[in-house]
Amino acid sequence: MPERAVTLLPDGKTAQVADGRTILDAAHEAGVALHSACGGNGTCGRCRVVVRSGNVDAPRAQQVSPEEAAAGVVLACQAVVRGDIVVEVPEASRPAVHQMMTAGGRAVQGQGEGAPLRPVFRKAVVKLPEPALDDPSSDLTRLYTALARQEGSRNFQMGLELLRDVPRIVREGGWQVTVSCVDARGMTEVVDIMPGRDETQVYGLAVDIGTTTCVVHLVDLATGETLDVRGAYNRQSEFGDDVISRIIYADETESGLARLQEAVVGTLNTLVKEAAARVGMRVDDIKVAVMAGNTTMTHLVLGIPPTYIRLEPYTPAATSMPPVKAHEIGLYISPEAWVFCLPGVASYVGGDITSGVVATGAGGSDDVVLFVDIGTNGEMVLGNKDWLLACACSAGPAFEGVGIRHGMRAMRGAIEHVDVDPSCDLVSYRTVGAARPAGICGSGFIDCLASMRRAGIISRNGSFDTGYEGRRMRMGDDGPEFVLAFAGETATGEDIYISEPDVKNLIRSKAAVYAGIQSMLRMVDQDLSDIRQILIAGGFGSYLNIRKAIEIGLLPDLPEQVYRYVGNTSVEGAKMCLLRREARREVELVARRMTYLELSAGNTFMEEFVSALFLPHTDLSLFPSVSA
Amino acid sequence: MPERAVTLLPDGKTAQVADGRTILDAAHEAGVALHSACGGNGTCGRCRVVVRSGNVDAPRAQQVSPEEAAAGVVLACQAVVRGDIVVEVPEASRPAVHQMMTAGGRAVQGQGEGAPLRPVFRKAVVKLPEPALDDPSSDLTRLYTALARQEGSRNFQMGLELLRDVPRIVREGGWQVTVSCVDARGMTEVVDIMPGRDETQVYGLAVDIGTTTCVVHLVDLATGETLDVRGAYNRQSEFGDDVISRIIYADETESGLARLQEAVVGTLNTLVKEAAARVGMRVDDIKVAVMAGNTTMTHLVLGIPPTYIRLEPYTPAATSMPPVKAHEIGLYISPEAWVFCLPGVASYVGGDITSGVVATGAGGSDDVVLFVDIGTNGEMVLGNKDWLLACACSAGPAFEGVGIRHGMRAMRGAIEHVDVDPSCDLVSYRTVGAARPAGICGSGFIDCLASMRRAGIISRNGSFDTGYEGRRMRMGDDGPEFVLAFAGETATGEDIYISEPDVKNLIRSKAAVYAGIQSMLRMVDQDLSDIRQILIAGGFGSYLNIRKAIEIGLLPDLPEQVYRYVGNTSVEGAKMCLLRREARREVELVARRMTYLELSAGNTFMEEFVSALFLPHTDLSLFPSVSA
Repeated sequence: MPERAVTLLPDGKTAQVADGRTILDAAHEAGVALHSACGGNGTCGRCRVVVRSGNVDAPRAQQVSPEEAAAGVVLACQAVVRGDIVVEVPEASRPAVHQMMTAGGRAVQGQGEGAPLRPVFRKAVVKLPEPALDDPSSDLTRLYTALARQEGSRNFQMGLELLRDVPRIVREGGWQVTVSCVDARGMTEVVDIMPGRDETQVYGLAVDIGTTTCVVHLVDLATGETLDVRGAYNRQSEFGDDVISRIIYADETESGLARLQEAVVGTLNTLVKEAAARVGMRVDDIKVAVMAGNTTMTHLVLGIPPTYIRLEPYTPAATSMPPVKAHEIGLYISPEAWVFCLPGVASYVGGDITSGVVATGAGGSDDVVLFVDIGTNGEMVLGNKDWLLACACSAGPAFEGVGIRHGMRAMRGAIEHVDVDPSCDLVSYRTVGAARPAGICGSGFIDCLASMRRAGIISRNGSFDTGYEGRRMRMGDDGPEFVLAFAGETATGEDIYISEPDVKNLIRSKAAVYAGIQSMLRMVDQDLSDIRQILIAGGFGSYLNIRKAIEIGLLPDLPEQVYRYVGNTSVEGAKMCLLRREARREVELVARRMTYLELSAGNTFMEEFVSALFLPHTDLSLFPSVSA
Repeated sequence: MPERAVTLLPDGKTAQVADGRTILDAAHEAGVALHSACGGNGTCGRCRVVVRSGNVDAPRAQQVSPEEAAAGVVLACQAVVRGDIVVEVPEASRPAVHQMMTAGGRAVQGQGEGAPLRPVFRKAVVKLPEPALDDPSSDLTRLYTALARQEGSRNFQMGLELLRDVPRIVREGGWQVTVSCVDARGMTEVVDIMPGRDETQVYGLAVDIGTTTCVVHLVDLATGETLDVRGAYNRQSEFGDDVISRIIYADETESGLARLQEAVVGTLNTLVKEAAARVGMRVDDIKVAVMAGNTTMTHLVLGIPPTYIRLEPYTPAATSMPPVKAHEIGLYISPEAWVFCLPGVASYVGGDITSGVVATGAGGSDDVVLFVDIGTNGEMVLGNKDWLLACACSAGPAFEGVGIRHGMRAMRGAIEHVDVDPSCDLVSYRTVGAARPAGICGSGFIDCLASMRRAGIISRNGSFDTGYEGRRMRMGDDGPEFVLAFAGETATGEDIYISEPDVKNLIRSKAAVYAGIQSMLRMVDQDLSDIRQILIAGGFGSYLNIRKAIEIGLLPDLPEQVYRYVGNTSVEGAKMCLLRREARREVELVARRMTYLELSAGNTFMEEFVSALFLPHTDLSLFPSVSA
């Protein structure tokens, strides 16, 4: 397959992709982020790009007007590259921080694009007043005073080694020096001084440590520009799919904790190395990292025993972690670089969530906002600028394809869209990468449930006893099964089906999420109608079909314009904290302000859960659009 | 010579001394501090002790009433031990911190004996609330919250290594732990945690790094008790007597700075080792050190180049030093122990002075106080709770016996008291240790000048042309000489004399001190009569005869009750900072509040200096008691 060069403007980045790949693939390859709320299936219409030159095959898309099409606008996810091309990526197609921020109703002050950068690690060129007889102050005082004026901080610190060089350096530079500072532990640490003006570039990392996937952004600390984005599966997966199995592995296997720690840091090291190679810089020039992850991931990346996270009453070792030096955890960046883990709230509401709340501005909103991150667990935050409530419901890993007979992650060959004909005999589906089906992923399951319910194959409680006895229904070892794809059409050579236990499992998962939302609302004496915006975060979230999620009763029956996909807010929040002081303060504040609601501690959740174990719900008045 | 056991009550300490030594010697040996403002010559009467049993030879002292004598009261410096004895040391005879403090007119709040100890390193037994479902907070948050309640701090930090053990330790201790904390860099660092109640003793050091002498107090951090006091000459002396010669050595000799650094730390290591051996503890149990020294000594102990301290405009590398770990400077205590150097103000007003100002409470006084520390340099502070002014005058090392033909330190054989008969032919003197004279020390010189002036051997400007031509006067290589002790009576087998250049040298030294005081007064538009108290600090100060110092015009002609000997306030201030948070705050504040007056920068000082180059002064009206 010939390679094609895809150049993206105004970034000026070029990716080499095989003929036949999409522009979205190329953008991903080049590290240019594009909206793909629909997961690249051509429905959300948010990945518009303009083809400036070259040959693409683009199907006529509904979301693109004839005028736009004439001007070269195509959907990046649908446009197939057929030669070397140049495309322009409009700002509106990029999931930029400032767009997400305003999503919360009110941008957190100073975090927007307008506020000046104040990276956690930065270089400042400082002019010192020359000493004189009537000014007895020391070289260090002179330096700190000049820095304070420029930096606005007061509490400076410096190590002895560096201090020993200060008299020489300030004089060598003729009382002008370039100072490298890092904000850590409530003070501004001066970590390097160079005579005169030093222009060496310095870099930072924003990291999302997901249970399943790790994402790294390599950022130029002087400009705030993201130079490369890399993602990969968390290598810890080989020790267990979910946090609980990893905690058990850490506790019960010899060197288990160390292996898990090395696995995740190894994942990051590979990503960092690749990113550095692409950008053409040394990993030693990465001077700081900000990481966001759930509480278990944060424990594991630091090598802190996570034992009590899984045992009632679910007490983490820490939610607010001390910053550590990169060499302490084996992260191959500058060994003395500080690594910050964003603070969490409880064992099941971690730094990924506080990060997301800050990235979206949800914590500063005037209106009531619901932030939902559905992965292995469903973590949710309800609140506004005055109060914040968080909970985690054990959705179970069903939505990530685990614990379901033919479940799989949203990888190539995963059925991500299903439509069941009213006759029930005809099933149409679409797979990731348009490959032969190998299993079903989370969004596929939600489609499945909604379609099967519509088609009348399953009853409201998920039972298969609805009278359909066509060729796709049969009795398996675990009870009735409904075949989505027969062996002849699958990649595995086996039938892909969904069983009654699978359906019940999924219903429990969706019920847990919905009951969590209702429990929070009851806690603060609010109603569904008080929610002005629902932010759907996370990798799974961006594939989620909102309408179908409402139909099965996973998400509240509110108008679709209330919903907004916000993407990976965990890494975006980490990046904001890397670049802006206000964000660092805000994330600390959000972690302190957030009240954690332990769902297993009261009766409300169980009541709500039981009521939600129906499609869409016991109380149909809660789902008027579905009932109708 | 038989050894005698001297037991001191209520301390319960016993020293072995040779028969014939004084009780003061024994107290020193045992590490029990006693007032000795007069330098142990029986005149100040402040070292009263009560003999409870045993045999002593005590001359009838004027300062002890017949009633007291009958009750067993003797002066420790005069009472000679003749058998095993037991003595009681009354509180009034001890140079305790709280006594010095009130000397300033107003005790600095919280530094007094009444305020609770808050050592910079301390152990706290903490009871944590057990976790529960309705309290999701982490082990670390639980620990910090409980600590905050007990400690009153908020900003806690902990290293990763220790954090990894927290979940185990808190559970092992049944939610009770003993936490070791240290206040450093604006936060409270948790450096160790033990399950349950851990009673291991921990120790701290208070250190005075003098150019000439280093003094170490070994302190029990739980009780605040000083367990041992050790002093020794600073081994840097072999590289130069004064700070300037040491700075030159550091600058111009290969590895000069490193050698000086090792010399002073070596001095301290020996003292610490001896103190630990006497107390019977391991040096590793010393968990923190607070050091006070002049700016050059502080640079040298940390290995910071002092180069620009001696070059106009006299800019130190730093006056406020970052805390360092003991291992960074080679101090053999716990390697991870923090070492704090108290902050100074300028190149020639260092942490020893701010320490003294805090120890004496001078910085918190309602009245105007003059703090004088005469050593190689004369460092002086004038002020009260509202303002503080400091200056340093290059007194030259004359008062420490340097640059004077027969000058020596106040060691055994030094002439410390001189009386010249009006006939001028008879000279009586007293030496340290009543040994054969080997030279003259600072206090001896002051006596000398006063006596020679009284006897009419020298004129008011220090010239020897007064007509006396007796056997003690002769012409030497440098001009006329006056013999104090002839070869036959000296330890050296040489005549000990004082020459005209010696006298002129001493007059320049005393004039510099007096001119410094006058310059400060003029700066703040105050008069000698505004000074309510003069605190005489430092080793030399405690040997100083105030009346004689006034007679030669070294110190202002104020009533003797204005004067107060305060001893080694440098080490006392360091000890207060070791033990009390308020003192640490106060010393920072004093360093910031103090305005440094550079005497060489204006004309005032030169005018005052020239006027003071007479005995006692050009303007006799300034010395009414002397003129009369």
